Amino acid sequence: MRIEQFYERSEALADPYSSRVDDQYETRARLDPVVYSDPLKDGMALTAEQKQAFERDGFLILDGAFTQDEVAGFNQELNRMARDSEFLSAAPTITEPLSGEVRSIFEIHKVSPVFEKLALDRRIAGAARDILNDDLYIHQSRLNYKPGFKGKEFFWHSDFETWHVEDGMPRMRAVSASILLTDNRYQNGPLMVIPGSHKTYLKCAGRTPDDNYKRSLKVQEVGVPDQENLRRMTEKGGLVAATREAGSLVLFDCNLMHGSAGNITPFPRSNTFFVFNAMSNQLMKPFGPEKARPEFLAEQRPKKISF
Amino acid sequence: MRIEQFYERSEALADPYSSRVDDQYETRARLDPVVYSDPLKDGMALTAEQKQAFERDGFLILDGAFTQDEVAGFNQELNRMARDSEFLSAAPTITEPLSGEVRSIFEIHKVSPVFEKLALDRRIAGAARDILNDDLYIHQSRLNYKPGFKGKEFFWHSDFETWHVEDGMPRMRAVSASILLTDNRYQNGPLMVIPGSHKTYLKCAGRTPDDNYKRSLKVQEVGVPDQENLRRMTEKGGLVAATREAGSLVLFDCNLMHGSAGNITPFPRSNTFFVFNAMSNQLMKPFGPEKARPEFLAEQRPKKISF
Repeated sequence: MRIEQFYERSEALADPYSSRVDDQYETRARLDPVVYSDPLKDGMALTAEQKQAFERDGFLILDGAFTQDEVAGFNQELNRMARDSEFLSAAPTITEPLSGEVRSIFEIHKVSPVFEKLALDRRIAGAARDILNDDLYIHQSRLNYKPGFKGKEFFWHSDFETWHVEDGMPRMRAVSASILLTDNRYQNGPLMVIPGSHKTYLKCAGRTPDDNYKRSLKVQEVGVPDQENLRRMTEKGGLVAATREAGSLVLFDCNLMHGSAGNITPFPRSNTFFVFNAMSNQLMKPFGPEKARPEFLAEQRPKKISF
Repeated sequence: MRIEQFYERSEALADPYSSRVDDQYETRARLDPVVYSDPLKDGMALTAEQKQAFERDGFLILDGAFTQDEVAGFNQELNRMARDSEFLSAAPTITEPLSGEVRSIFEIHKVSPVFEKLALDRRIAGAARDILNDDLYIHQSRLNYKPGFKGKEFFWHSDFETWHVEDGMPRMRAVSASILLTDNRYQNGPLMVIPGSHKTYLKCAGRTPDDNYKRSLKVQEVGVPDQENLRRMTEKGGLVAATREAGSLVLFDCNLMHGSAGNITPFPRSNTFFVFNAMSNQLMKPFGPEKARPEFLAEQRPKKISF
């Protein structure tokens, strides 16, 4: 039975991951597994040990997963796209609130053969498969570019909270993979995560306005965790900054609390970002607003990845 | 002859540190010494080696200059002031643009006996004396409080550029001392400096609007270095973040390029900040706007420090 049918049949069943339905913040234990395969067995890309670390922490960093030559190729492709104004005006892109510089380019696995190949690379898609143990598709992909001097912060959030409320992702069975295209230093706004936070679901206060995504990709206003719960999560799990060299791969669970500070240094910070979702976890109607977000943010026509 | 007389007598002499007079950025070599005492001799607080490092880098970090007990006392005093609404409404304070939380309290050496004593401590005032080799007074003092979650960034700047243009500080003969009251971690927006940048003066483009300080203490708009020069300075000198434990002392030259990123972590970042100026370098009329900034930002009635 697909999850959608399950929800439809039990109308009385409350949404276990409801959020933005009133003015209350509330924590709930995660109901879903983190690693869906046998954590004691090596997978096609990850060892048993790595799967166990991912289960415990909600993320895994693989230093030097890609060679400097490979990274140079990705950056070449990035620069080609960023300079192609015709391409940019057609592709879904997000710009910095103040400077107008490109912050994100979406659907890179659809518009660039280089990044399509990267997404399907065994080191990435294979790792996602090891964790999710199901047929997979790409829920979202993007290039994040945090320019020097003016890169804005991204406040703490759980991706799943947004994907559930705004996109209709039913359960936690998705994983994100980020490949660092520049060195991520302490100073230039690296990804920061709260280890272990993926095991708690934080229901957020507020309601989702229509077309929220047009604002939320620049400055978040709803689905934002409260300070008290963030403080508690940090006290329990600490705080880790993924300050690694270009070519490193960061895998993280869809419900891991993460964010990044601004970047006033001259060093830009770029990475690619692919979200893999289980075919059994395809999107339903959004649990929050009536209208689903556009497809570049949330794939509506899943295409199964072949291994 | 006091510097003021020198400027008055030579009307034809161009201001060597002019800035914000047209739309050009321009770098000039620093005309003034960095360390005014003999760099080969130990001083009352700094060794010859420390003075030489300061001369070369433009800053010096002294780990554990103050004990954890002393730091606890300073934080107690900080909390007492921050909770005293009567005091706060009377004292010059700056609040965060968005949250309204206290960001800075000024003139702490005048309003708090605890911080007056700290400013005059031989470890601080003595170190300033070793560097400036003159009678000294306190040009400015403040408590900086970067709250958790919402602490905003402070873009790169040279203090001297502002002090010269807006306050009328004639030459580079002032030093800042910052005592860390909380651990400054990589993640919570520590002070970042560009080593060696103090030896170049960067004339900035733009003009200073009236009462600029009311905005500039929150968000800087003029006296802001351009990206090209910042990039060049960083390529030459690198970038250092003063990520140290509470109780550490950071001394830095008035012309050192520095800034700090925002703070989305739950950990607040506090420090005290004292600026010592040479009595021979007292303020003249501002070189930029007609009207001088208020006295809490720029002391107009110097009181010589006794050693």
